[in-house]
Amino acid sequence: GTIPDHAKKVFEGVIFDVYQWEQKLYDGSTTTFEMLKRPSTAEVIATKDGKIMLQDQEQPNKPRFLSLPGGRIEKGEDPLEGAKRELLEESGFASDQWGIYHSVEPTSKLDWEIYVYIAQNCAFVQEMELDGGEKIEIKWVTFDEFLELIDNGQLVWIEQNLRMQCIRAKYHDPSKEELRKIIFGG
Amino acid sequence: GTIPDHAKKVFEGVIFDVYQWEQKLYDGSTTTFEMLKRPSTAEVIATKDGKIMLQDQEQPNKPRFLSLPGGRIEKGEDPLEGAKRELLEESGFASDQWGIYHSVEPTSKLDWEIYVYIAQNCAFVQEMELDGGEKIEIKWVTFDEFLELIDNGQLVWIEQNLRMQCIRAKYHDPSKEELRKIIFGG
Repeated sequence: GTIPDHAKKVFEGVIFDVYQWEQKLYDGSTTTFEMLKRPSTAEVIATKDGKIMLQDQEQPNKPRFLSLPGGRIEKGEDPLEGAKRELLEESGFASDQWGIYHSVEPTSKLDWEIYVYIAQNCAFVQEMELDGGEKIEIKWVTFDEFLELIDNGQLVWIEQNLRMQCIRAKYHDPSKEELRKIIFGG
Repeated sequence: GTIPDHAKKVFEGVIFDVYQWEQKLYDGSTTTFEMLKRPSTAEVIATKDGKIMLQDQEQPNKPRFLSLPGGRIEKGEDPLEGAKRELLEESGFASDQWGIYHSVEPTSKLDWEIYVYIAQNCAFVQEMELDGGEKIEIKWVTFDEFLELIDNGQLVWIEQNLRMQCIRAKYHDPSKEELRKIIFGG
């Protein structure tokens, strides 16, 4: 979704800002429209030796869950730089082969962009730097295991268009080979 | 996501309310956590003569898009009653064969529930009652066309778990027959 330029910021939160504006409707009447803005998010498909990195993690106020590494891009930070920073902090791994997979806006009432990157041939360069709200264990899974975890619902919290591509890849061999090439190169 | 009982409502908007609370972290420090609450949404898979109802619609401040019928459940309204009301208002159709497909919470920072219902053998009972912010044209598509529109990205704004089931059905015959039975019965 796109917040019009003339919208007014009516609330500024820790993560979410709320905008409102008067919207003219088709019948000539007007009503108050509302949208939210939150910082962009990066997700990283990080590979090494034919495997993909997953995070088995715990956060306060949530059940344990699997995810790709990633996190919130900071104000003024370039999305790719944010993705590199998050991968390094949360896993200790770095790569010099980065590419964008895609970027999407997941919901219509929210000005929120998710950038999905691919970081190939990652190498361990330093210890993790977790903050007090993170407990993360790194796991490496094969491409088949990755697709299976998405298909069986154990890996739910990944960007939804990527999730859809993975379901397609699980059941459609040409899509699988295409996705494998995109993720691992070659 | 679940907002803790002790969270404080710090902003009340037209659609979104913002809650905050002090969250103790793993290292003993505390920080302000933030979550949003928005009214539940209903989506309806409405069938008639082996076809599924789609809405080709326009809303102010958005490009034209395809969707299932549905909308916001009102305060104090039962979700199923809200789904019946939205289907009737937005299409003029009603059914006496309703079932729940599933209900999901699509994002973790948001207390937001989407109910997906199936309404079989719908019949036209009255003219649409659109509000000033809606322009809707009803289309009926076959099950195969429905899966194709989801697979090719023309029908994007449907609940994401249903979207995933449809992608699976598109490429996996047993899943397709299962989904066909759930939607059309028999």
